[in-house]
Parts: sequence; structure tokens; C-alpha cells
Amino acid sequence: MDRIRIVSLFFFIVLFLTASIKASSLNLMPMPVKIKPQDGRFIISRELGIEIQGPYSPRVLLAKRRFLHRLAGRTGIFFKLNPESTSIKIVYKKNIKLSPIMDESYTLLINQSGIILKANTDIGILRGIETLLQLLSSDGKHYYFPAVEITDYPRFPWRGLLIDVVRHFMPIEVLKRNIDAMAAVKMNVLHLHLSDDQGFRIECKIYPRLHLFASDGDYYTHEQIKDLIRYADLRGIRIVPEFDIPGHTTSWLVAYPSLAAIPRPYKMERTYGVKNSVMDPTNKLVYKFLERFFKEMAKLFPDPYIHIGGDEVNGVQWKSSKKIAKFMKKHHLKDFHQLQAYFNLKVLKILEKNHKKMIGWDEILHPDMPKDIVIQSWRGKKFLYNAAKRGYYTILSNGYYIDLAQPTDFHYLNDPIPEGVELSPEERKRILGGEATMWSEIVSPETIDSRIWPRTAAIAERLWSPGTVKDVSDMYRRLKIITQQMEELGITHIKNQDMMLRRLARYRDITPLKIFIQTVAPVQNYERHKSRTYTVFSPLTRVVDAAVPDPPLPREFESMVADYLSTGDRAIENRIINYLILWKDNHNSLKELIEISPVLKEIEPLSENLSIISALALERISIKERGQTPDPRWIERAKRTLEKAKKPVAELELLVAEPIEKLILSITQ
Amino acid sequence: MDRIRIVSLFFFIVLFLTASIKASSLNLMPMPVKIKPQDGRFIISRELGIEIQGPYSPRVLLAKRRFLHRLAGRTGIFFKLNPESTSIKIVYKKNIKLSPIMDESYTLLINQSGIILKANTDIGILRGIETLLQLLSSDGKHYYFPAVEITDYPRFPWRGLLIDVVRHFMPIEVLKRNIDAMAAVKMNVLHLHLSDDQGFRIECKIYPRLHLFASDGDYYTHEQIKDLIRYADLRGIRIVPEFDIPGHTTSWLVAYPSLAAIPRPYKMERTYGVKNSVMDPTNKLVYKFLERFFKEMAKLFPDPYIHIGGDEVNGVQWKSSKKIAKFMKKHHLKDFHQLQAYFNLKVLKILEKNHKKMIGWDEILHPDMPKDIVIQSWRGKKFLYNAAKRGYYTILSNGYYIDLAQPTDFHYLNDPIPEGVELSPEERKRILGGEATMWSEIVSPETIDSRIWPRTAAIAERLWSPGTVKDVSDMYRRLKIITQQMEELGITHIKNQDMMLRRLARYRDITPLKIFIQTVAPVQNYERHKSRTYTVFSPLTRVVDAAVPDPPLPREFESMVADYLSTGDRAIENRIINYLILWKDNHNSLKELIEISPVLKEIEPLSENLSIISALALERISIKERGQTPDPRWIERAKRTLEKAKKPVAELELLVAEPIEKLILSITQ
Repeated sequence: MDRIRIVSLFFFIVLFLTASIKASSLNLMPMPVKIKPQDGRFIISRELGIEIQGPYSPRVLLAKRRFLHRLAGRTGIFFKLNPESTSIKIVYKKNIKLSPIMDESYTLLINQSGIILKANTDIGILRGIETLLQLLSSDGKHYYFPAVEITDYPRFPWRGLLIDVVRHFMPIEVLKRNIDAMAAVKMNVLHLHLSDDQGFRIECKIYPRLHLFASDGDYYTHEQIKDLIRYADLRGIRIVPEFDIPGHTTSWLVAYPSLAAIPRPYKMERTYGVKNSVMDPTNKLVYKFLERFFKEMAKLFPDPYIHIGGDEVNGVQWKSSKKIAKFMKKHHLKDFHQLQAYFNLKVLKILEKNHKKMIGWDEILHPDMPKDIVIQSWRGKKFLYNAAKRGYYTILSNGYYIDLAQPTDFHYLNDPIPEGVELSPEERKRILGGEATMWSEIVSPETIDSRIWPRTAAIAERLWSPGTVKDVSDMYRRLKIITQQMEELGITHIKNQDMMLRRLARYRDITPLKIFIQTVAPVQNYERHKSRTYTVFSPLTRVVDAAVPDPPLPREFESMVADYLSTGDRAIENRIINYLILWKDNHNSLKELIEISPVLKEIEPLSENLSIISALALERISIKERGQTPDPRWIERAKRTLEKAKKPVAELELLVAEPIEKLILSITQ
Repeated sequence: MDRIRIVSLFFFIVLFLTASIKASSLNLMPMPVKIKPQDGRFIISRELGIEIQGPYSPRVLLAKRRFLHRLAGRTGIFFKLNPESTSIKIVYKKNIKLSPIMDESYTLLINQSGIILKANTDIGILRGIETLLQLLSSDGKHYYFPAVEITDYPRFPWRGLLIDVVRHFMPIEVLKRNIDAMAAVKMNVLHLHLSDDQGFRIECKIYPRLHLFASDGDYYTHEQIKDLIRYADLRGIRIVPEFDIPGHTTSWLVAYPSLAAIPRPYKMERTYGVKNSVMDPTNKLVYKFLERFFKEMAKLFPDPYIHIGGDEVNGVQWKSSKKIAKFMKKHHLKDFHQLQAYFNLKVLKILEKNHKKMIGWDEILHPDMPKDIVIQSWRGKKFLYNAAKRGYYTILSNGYYIDLAQPTDFHYLNDPIPEGVELSPEERKRILGGEATMWSEIVSPETIDSRIWPRTAAIAERLWSPGTVKDVSDMYRRLKIITQQMEELGITHIKNQDMMLRRLARYRDITPLKIFIQTVAPVQNYERHKSRTYTVFSPLTRVVDAAVPDPPLPREFESMVADYLSTGDRAIENRIINYLILWKDNHNSLKELIEISPVLKEIEPLSENLSIISALALERISIKERGQTPDPRWIERAKRTLEKAKKPVAELELLVAEPIEKLILSITQ
């Protein structure tokens, strides 16, 4: 097949996918609690004026400015500098401090004469403005907001995103654009994982060796952090800092080896995984150090919570220390869990002195801890429920590990409190919400947005909307619009893919790569780390990095195949055939690129597999067309080929292999 | 024609353009002074090691780190953490302070056993590393650097880019990514236009009303500026701050009305153009103010130069002040030019006290000024030569106004000292170089990169390479690669176009818009301002903003038409016909988008014109095919239609209209 035919098929597919978006339905995410569509609409004109009724609030004033900027950006309307009329009324009662108990509710009333957005708090107004922007509609002549009555409030008060800025440092602008995207889907906590084995990422004035000797120069200054906190606060988002102790602390020990259970010179950690480095919980100077350290950080971060990590202490160094063994005996500490609890209680006192509450990972749970701490559950829901049943506040991260490249619907259906779970009303209340976790071992500032978005928007809906909102296909429909809207906030999750492909193709035409990459996804869970050793210096610019988790095409191809198998529809068959021809023939074009770009060599077998199984499927259809059935040996051969095609190559999975297999094996006359 | 055919033609064209890049030639920009290609090549492996011989230099150390990061990024190679061999040697003698007299020369020697990069200074090493990265090549198996001997140094010592951060504020990351791009093409001055009528963009500790009351909150803190200066210094780039006085000062007067020639309350300026607001040069308190102001800024900015603007003082306010008239009489100042010179001399004393030299626009030239100031010539080369002849240092900006959307070759051929110009060797030496000027009335952080790049790379070559390097078509050939390489530095000039089109298309398929936008460019010079009134709040998200100056397609279509007219080649004719069919039929698809997106309405006539003249050209070819000549009335009608099609619509010019006209009117049997 000639190249033109390839690209025409490719774009036929693009067009088809695009056309499948229904313009008629509302594209809201997260879905509000109550929506009452009305007749009519409010038409947007140059005269649009906004009146604010409520106490002076920089949050609301700047939100108004951003609203107008985004509205003008989408519509191209030159709004009057001083409009005479007031068509949008923003009404709220009070300004509040950010906290897990803040009121974020709002009501939105749109009719043809105007819009009223009401809330108890200025934060509620921020949430409502995002809903209003998502409602923007148009016809051939006008932009308008459809008439509607919306009542809305969150199901959970803690809706967070963790960004690990240690394994790969993320410049401030990465955080800022993600804060804007979080606000667009009503998330309210940015959890910064600020220290770990591979680096210490924040200026510490009292112990400057931490950032000067253990960061490779990549850290945030106090002024940057203050600016970031203000930026997030203006958007109704809390910043919760995490300083992971007593394990995950190699960077601390590089700067201050005397804090270590085994004091000796430490080197910057360049590899990943659980390390042995750990603080010495028996050393009084460690607590003196932490006391001065947390005093500085408590002053810098206004949030009521400080996260102390506490995960994955492997005990290797503690075990090898006679001093520690002696101490444990003396204090009747039976095991390392008790030793860590001893440490945590000391740290707790320090936090309390600084008027902060503690949050930490599963492992900090211990009967001696007070009931106002928060347990962040990463190991499974049983830990979440266990914490709630034992009287602790808790948030869910297990099932929201977005670094693992799992599909959107997996996260979406991961309800912290699913129907039928046995929890008392009190216990349910203790489950405050959840956090998506963006661990950054294998993401860079260039790729991080595509690992967070759009999947995190579905998690945001899970944590905001009623539990009954769980129609997966409707979620995917809305996500397709929402993900593109995020681009106006500077999020690079869509636009960086072509850029990365241009680099991979050494600035040649990227069409064959685009066709290929739509059919694959990075391997899930920790498979990438199993296939090769990543360090903090490894390139994150290969095809697997340009590929995105849960790409739309394989999903849509799968449902096309299912439709075809159940209906035998000829139009669908033709569409499927077009795909198969495209994939079959793409391999030749891709090979041309591979010949000038060695970095692409690793995907050659995968592309060849795609070509081979597409040819098989075409053959199977043609056998059917001839009214025949395939030879059993043909079927056996096909099965073996399909098994091979489903095996990951170059850390990529060929997602269309499964629906192609289904097609080949389930086709009937 | 069906849609598939449209997109297949579209991609046929993309493929054709891409295929036209010759991989064989070196893609260097700016072109070095001497290149001696050798036999062989240096193959890049995991073992690549770099040895540095020279005094400790953070510039070189970080440049090495960035070099490895970019090389790994392009090749996907997992370089060893501790390679045993040393294959790249970096040798330099000393570290230097940035200044217009610094030595930036280097030599680069590549053979199969290794690479030696030598320079007198660490800055020379930075320049050589960029050349090395541009030399990266590949075949089916390896990445390599071709064996070569390069000797290189700049023609002019001042190779700058002005960014106006007033009319639209540019966040720090915009400046940082542009600094990286500047370094990639060996530019060495970032000129920040920090104050103007529409805002005051830097924190002033001694007079905080300046940034607090006259910036809308959009300003750089001292810490950000220090960080930026360090960032630029590490890349061998000076930062020259401009505080435009005594005109262009509305923002100063909003904060401190007593500085004004006409003291009264001033409001933030939201519109553009030359304003009357001006400082009072007869008021002693103005100089006291400026003394304290410049003392602070001189300390903050380490560069030897401070830019005082001095342009476009219209005299309206001075004229209306009796006090000023009296003062002028008393001091024998004959006109406003003399009054401004009086002002400038006072400011000069202040700068000298702070050990700074003055730079200013054309208008500051006055016989009383000392000879060590620099005149920045924006009004024409005669001002440049006049300054040089009168003994002043001078740099050229006239002809480098990249905000005016002019084509790359216009800037490229704008040589500060063209062959044959009558200047003595002394006078020639006084011409220090030039600066591209990115005025930001109608650019935003989203679009600015596409206004600066890639055209500024051609200006960079003009100012670095020998004057004899001026082959326009070779420049365009190299630019095509260089512009894509810039993406790895975070420059958004390519990737933001699709993103803007997605927003314009309200998240539908953007193919028809892409086909359209490749044929047009924003109107040049100040035409956009003539067509409507822009303010600082106007949306910059319309088709004209997504369109780029000097797009490649019309240029390539034009040369195709010229080839065809001179050779009559059938293959070229077919290619031309394909384009014409594509454009003729695109209008229908585009209309579908227009029907759901009112912001696109304004381009409908232009798209229709494109369709009509494409149809005309197809008709003309078909008349020829039939061996006939067109009726003279047909020709007359065609001419009128073509005239209409060449008229700008929606601030866009249909660039392919001219080659289509040429085709229609020059075709022969």
C-alpha cells in the first residue's frame, strides 16, 4: 500500500473517533450532585459584566480575571473594558482558611437573562466558576451557557495529588500548571514529596547542608515555596509537605551523616528501590535536629498537616547496630515497628509543639498514636478500613498509583467506600478522601503531565461526585473533552507527544510513529523497572515515554470489535478492515524511520507483530467472506502468533492484540 | 471530494516537504567560520566519558550535564554512571566575566578516537558544545559525530534579543526557555524591557509603589531576577535591563504622580501607542528619585550596561507646561531634544556613579554625550551609521523587529555592515552587533515562542557568522532542522499551534484548520493594530495568533510553481494539482467547523477565496491540457478574483495567492 493510503486511513480513523463525541450532552467533570436542565440559554456578548457581592477576596477577584481570560481565549471575544451591564452575579458570605473541613459547596443558576453563582465561602465560588467554564457551549452564531440549575458539594473533603519532586525534580512551573489543572477538576490538596534517598528538594535555612549538599542544585527556595503556596491558596488548594522519615533518608545522611543509624559518609543515591539508610531513633541529637528542622518548616507551610512519611523502613541498619539493640531492650521495644512508633511519638510531640497535625503512610499506625492523625493508606483498602475502625482518620492512595500506568476505569471504579462495605457511619466519616500519587522514578518534567492527566480527572470525580456516578463509558466520553480543555492551562500532556516523536524520528515525518503509538501503552505496575535498571540519569525520551497509559484508540477498537461480533454489521466490518490494513502496512514506513534512528530499533518487533496479526485478522475475515472456516492448524498457528504479540516488548504492550485475538477466534459465518 | 481524500492529499504534502530535507549536509546554525570535514566519525556509546581540563567553572560543569542530558534524550542511550574511558576532552584556560568584549572563540576537533573542544574561555566552551550537539548524526545502527575540524568565533560581540515583558508579562519560565534557545544559536544578550506605560515589571524595594501599584501583580521579585541572571550567566548570556525614561512612563506616574511633567492622578494604561505621559526633567526631585532607583537596580544587575530607553517622547506634556518653558529659556535649551539631552546627562551621571554605562534608543544621541555609551538604532541604518561616524558605539535593531511578522530572509539579509557600505575600519568596529526586538503588544506567553523562533535563529547567524554566509535557501534548509531541535529546550513554537487549533475547533478534528493555516500568515508591520483596537486584555487566541510568520508551505509552493513554469515538468504539475484540489475542497470541511465555532467565522471569506482561486488555477491548467488558451474575459475575471484574494482578511494574508496568480497568468502551452 502506498503511503498516501496509509495516512488517509489513519486520518479516517481520527475523523471517526472525533465524530463520535456527542456535542449534545453536558461535559462536566466532576459531575455535580444535582443538575436540573432548563429551557433557554444565556448568550455571551462583549457586554458581559461580572458583579461580586461578598467580602474582599483576592481569590475571587483573581478567579474572575482568569475566568474572563479563559472565556475570551476560547471565544475570541474582545470583552469591553468597562461593560455597563452586570450579567453574572457572584455572591458569597465569607472568606475561609483552607483546611479539610472547609465548605466548598455552591449553587449555579443560569437563565437567559443572567447567571447567579452563590456559595457560603469564597472557595465555593472557585469551584462553581470551573463548572461554569465547563458549561460553555456554541452554535453557528453564539457562544452561550445553557440554562441550568446546579447544586453541588463534594463527597470527600480530601481530594489530593501527590507529586514526587525528588526522583525527578519538577521546576515550579510544572507544579503551577498542575495546580491549575487540579483546580479545574475541583481537587484541593497538592501533597509534595520533598525528601527521599535521591535528594532533598527544599531550602533549609537552619541546616543548609540539606539543600546545598544533597540536591544537585535542584531545590525550591523559601521564596518559591511561599509563592507556590499563595498560588495554590488562590485556587483553593492546600499544600501538604512530606518529609519522609526515618527511612527514605539517604539525602539527609549525605548532608548530616551523624543522624544515621550507621554513621559513615553517605553518597547521593542514583538508583531506585527500598534502601537501608535510616535515621537513628535512639539518638537524642536526631530529635534536637528534627525539632529545629520542623520548627522552620512548620512556619513556612501554613497547612494544619505535615506528612512524615514513615514507609518502607526495612530494619537492616537497625538490626546491625548493637547500640540500637541495647536501647530497644532497655525501653522494652519488642520489634522495629515498636521502635518506629517510639520515633513517631517523639516526632508527634515536635509537630504538636508547632501546632501541626501528623499525617503518614500506613506504617505509622500504632495504638499509642492519638486519634487526630491521618493515615494514608497505600498498601490496600484493608489498611484503610482498619485505620477507620480503630478510630483514625484516613485517606486512600492504594488504587490511585498513577505512576503504574493503569487504565483510567481501574482508578475510577476504586471507591474508598464502595456500596456494601461494612463500616459504621462514624467509621465512614473518618475516611476523608484520597490522593493520586505521581511517583517520579520514570517521569520527567516533559512527560509528567501525560502521566497525571487525564486519568487523575477521573479520580477527582470519584472523590467529589456521588458514589452513584460510575458509568465508565460516560466518564470516557466526558474525559475526551475535559482533557483537551486542560491544555489552555498550560498542561503539556497532549502536545508533548508529537514533540517527542519528532525528536525520535530525527525531525522526519512522524506519521508512522503516530499510527504505531496509538496502539500501545507502557507496561503496567513495576514492569518497566524489571526490564532494565533505571537511574536518575536515564533518558525518559524513548517510545515508551512518549506512549501514554490507557490511550483511547485500543479501547474504541475493542468496542468496535464487540459490536461487530454481536451484530455482524457491514459498516463496522469495513471500519475494522481499514484499521487492520493501516496497521498491516504501517510497519514498512516505520522501518524506514528505524533505519535512520537507532533509538527506534527496540520497537521493530512490536510493530512487526502488529503487522502480522493485522494480516491474520484480514485473512480470517476473507476466509469468512468466502463462506469457509479456517483449518484447525491455521487456528493453532494464529493462536501462537497472537500469544507472542501480546508479550511486552521495549516496555510496551500492544493493546490492540487482545481485540484482534477476539476477532480472529470469535468470528462466525 | 470526500474527507479522506482531503487528508490524504494534505499528508502527501507533509511527506513531500519532509522528504525534501537533505540529511547529508551539516545542519549548523550559526554557520562556523571554518569547517574542514574529515574522513571517519566518532561513534557514541554507553561508555562516553568527558574530561574537563581547566579552572573550576560551574558554567562548564553544568553545560556538561546539560550536554549529556540532551544527548541521552535524543539517542535514548543509558550512559554509564562512571565510564572508564575519556572520549571527549574539554580544554580551556580561564573563566571570564560576561561583557561585550569577551572571547567566545573555540576550536572543535572530532575524529574516530575522540573529540577535543578547546577555547580560551569557559564561554567559548559553551559555544562549542552547542556546535557539537548540532553535529549529532545517525545511521541504522549508531549515533555518531562526523569527523571535522572547526574554528569558530563571532563576527559581532553583541547578539541580542529584546523581550518586552510589559505589554504582556512573561513568567520566568518563558524567559528561561528562551535563554536556552538563545544559547543554542550562540546569542549572548537578553535585553529586558522592564517598564513602560502599561506596567512596571520588577520589584523595587526603595520605591515599592512601582511594582505594587503599577503591575497588576505581574512583576519579578529580586530573588527571581537574581536567579534569572545566574541562569543566563551559566549559559553565557548577559541580561541588560531597560527602564524606559522619560517617556513611556505612565506606570511610574501611576505609582508616583509627582514625577510627572503634569502632576495629577494617572491610571494604568490599557491601550497601546505613543502616550503623552512623561517625567518632568526640570524637577530636581525626579533626579533624586532616579538616583535612589538606579542605585538599587545597578546593584541587582551585574551587567556593565543599563538601558534608559529614551524613545518616542512626543513633547505634548512638556509643551503644555509653563514651568518647563521657563526652565528651558533659563537654561538655553532650544527644543525638546535639548531638554531630553539635559535629562539624559543627569541620568548619565547617576549611572556613572554606579559604575554603569548607558545604552539607549536612537533619540539619546546628542553631542554632549560621552563616547562610551551605546546607541540602539531602531529607526533605520542611517541612524546606525550616523552614530558610528560620530564616534559612538551602536547596535542595530531596525530590520530585526520580529514583532512585525516579516519573513525570515528579510531579517537574515539585513546585515549591519553590508558589503560596500562606506565606513572606516574604526567606524566598523563601533558597530557592536544587533538585537532582535520582541515587542509584546499582541503576543502572550502562549504565542511568544512562535514569534521569536525560528526567525531569530537566522538573525543569530547574521550576527555570528561571516557576512559571506548569506545563501537564503541553505539557511531555510538548515532552519527546518534547527527549529525542531529547539523543542527539546521547552520552546513551544511548534507544539502550541495544534493546541490553539484544538481550542478554536472546540475539540473537534483540526485537519481542515491545519490545511488552511499553512497557507496564511499574520499581516505584516503594524497592520493588525490598524484593523482593530487591541488592549492588554484582548484575546490572543484567534486564527491570526495561531498562524505563524513566514510559514514554510507557501515558500515551497512558490518555488514549485517557478520550477514548473520554467520546466513544464509533469511530476511537478501533479504535485501542484494535488495542492490545488486540497485547497479547493478544504473550504467545505472548514465550514463545518465554523458552524460550531463562531470564533472561526472571520476566516470564512479567506478560506472561500483560497477555494475559488485554487479552482481557477485548476481550470487554467485544464484549459492548457485541452491545448486551448483562455478567453481574455476569463483572464480579466481571474485577475479581479486574484486581486480580491490577495487582500488581507481577519488580519491574515493568503500567502499562496501570489504563486497561484503567477501560475494562472504565466502558464503557457
